[in-house]
Amino acid sequence: MTSPVTVLGISNAIVDVLAHVDDEILAEIGSIKGSMTLIDQDQAERIYALMGPTTEMSGGSVANTIANLATLGGQSAYIGCVADDRLGQVFVHDMKSLGVDVILPPVNTDASTASSYILISPGGERTLNTYLGACLELSPEHVSEQAVAGAGLVLLEGYVWDNPLGPAAAHKAMRLAKEHGAKVGLTLSDSYCVDRHRAAFAEAIDGQVQMVFANEKEIMSLLGTSTFEDAVAKTHELEPLFVLTRSEKGSVIVNNQCEVIQAAVPVDEVVDVTGAGDAYIAGFLYGWTAGLGLDESARLGSACAARVIRQIGSRLEKSS
Amino acid sequence: MTSPVTVLGISNAIVDVLAHVDDEILAEIGSIKGSMTLIDQDQAERIYALMGPTTEMSGGSVANTIANLATLGGQSAYIGCVADDRLGQVFVHDMKSLGVDVILPPVNTDASTASSYILISPGGERTLNTYLGACLELSPEHVSEQAVAGAGLVLLEGYVWDNPLGPAAAHKAMRLAKEHGAKVGLTLSDSYCVDRHRAAFAEAIDGQVQMVFANEKEIMSLLGTSTFEDAVAKTHELEPLFVLTRSEKGSVIVNNQCEVIQAAVPVDEVVDVTGAGDAYIAGFLYGWTAGLGLDESARLGSACAARVIRQIGSRLEKSS
Repeated sequence: MTSPVTVLGISNAIVDVLAHVDDEILAEIGSIKGSMTLIDQDQAERIYALMGPTTEMSGGSVANTIANLATLGGQSAYIGCVADDRLGQVFVHDMKSLGVDVILPPVNTDASTASSYILISPGGERTLNTYLGACLELSPEHVSEQAVAGAGLVLLEGYVWDNPLGPAAAHKAMRLAKEHGAKVGLTLSDSYCVDRHRAAFAEAIDGQVQMVFANEKEIMSLLGTSTFEDAVAKTHELEPLFVLTRSEKGSVIVNNQCEVIQAAVPVDEVVDVTGAGDAYIAGFLYGWTAGLGLDESARLGSACAARVIRQIGSRLEKSS
Repeated sequence: MTSPVTVLGISNAIVDVLAHVDDEILAEIGSIKGSMTLIDQDQAERIYALMGPTTEMSGGSVANTIANLATLGGQSAYIGCVADDRLGQVFVHDMKSLGVDVILPPVNTDASTASSYILISPGGERTLNTYLGACLELSPEHVSEQAVAGAGLVLLEGYVWDNPLGPAAAHKAMRLAKEHGAKVGLTLSDSYCVDRHRAAFAEAIDGQVQMVFANEKEIMSLLGTSTFEDAVAKTHELEPLFVLTRSEKGSVIVNNQCEVIQAAVPVDEVVDVTGAGDAYIAGFLYGWTAGLGLDESARLGSACAARVIRQIGSRLEKSS
């Protein structure tokens, strides 16, 4: 084991509002099952009114990964924007209580803390409608040199590019990481996000990002292939390490010429797939930052993903 | 089946803040495992800071019963006080989304919506620390004649007596129920609550309440006996119907000379006993309001209690 590496997450700080729903509600809302749609406050109120009783829990993709990493015993830090309201307090409390070094930029906005309305279908699949609120304030000045200098890996999510100054914040983080010898990881968030920012992601992957996390749809969308196999072939030609997750089909890790294939851990009953990808990345990075090999890191990723889909909610429970 | 009877709950409207904890934290807080302690805002902040990541869900004892009754398909209405804040919105949304007729009194207070900080021990037992906030405003003027007149049963909880004007509100509800031919049910909340209000509860049971819900400790505390058997013997001499729950030992229903003994439904893995008693009452009342006998109603109560302790959170999930 080498000395622990701190992973610094920079992402949208979101509190999830979860409910089990019938698929008819998806049609009523006009959401595509399994997608993430950005919504405004009016739409948020309309969707919330259509949902049954909800559970509120901290969420956000990279935020989940950072929290899970801390739950596993890893070192992590976090930069994200919340409002000074109850959900913002919940988000920060949950991070700090796990030992995450939370760096909170001052945010001047009337918008409330971001909420993701998560509709869980009978089979466990989830459809997200996200109101970004205070997240939209993320800007380069929030990415401090000190925070990046203290990290071994900076983890960004594709959704950051949806914020007005998000791309600028991401670029500053990537530049500072290069200057201080930190690596940069990027998770592609979802295939619609890749559609929105394909050129920007391709540019980042060409020299600024050393580690890419994606599922099948996302990597196919990014590399413009019609099959997963073609996408994998293309990743062999690219510089970064690619960690590609495939739900029940496991994962594939591509490091230039080297390819590691990892089976998924079987799960009897899928309760809620929310956060499976985020948990996988946490397990993988827990191994990787401790100096484990790609195969062992992938195994930890699969184990964490299996754990999180057996429960409601997007973060690993400490007791499970 | 007779025509459906509306159950009107009048109680403390609370949002639960749940976390799994080690028992050392209970010692640090100074809480007795399994108890409910009333706390002020400063204590609430101290306890919250000691808790790990939390989940926020609507709670409150009788509020849980009313929500569960609606989930089961029963008719229910609810009166309780929340503040105009995020947690208040969550509480009301969750009730309304189940079809509960929520009657919200206007509340003028700077206090926020009540929160119960629920510490779940490894075995599933829960320790509650409750900040009453806006609940303290409950007053007789909130108990409208129209609401009581439309109900077949008014369900009160012992905790209502902890609020300054709670006893007056309860007395108005009992008087109106008598005038309109509605029955009154009282759940004793917890044994410490019985200690605080023993004389008031004894007086209510002597003529104003037709149905008493209690666990072993509560009924022994109320009737001043050192064994459960002695308490049961005493209930045979009293007017109301007694529904006495005993965790894994099942329940005993006493209706004057008649006694019904109901076994508990076995549960393989206890996840969180929060809300087991509330769920039992919902199942029981669902049967009772539909005109079922005491034995069948008790069976429904046991089934609902078993369901709720297999999950985190205090209310029945619609999908389970």
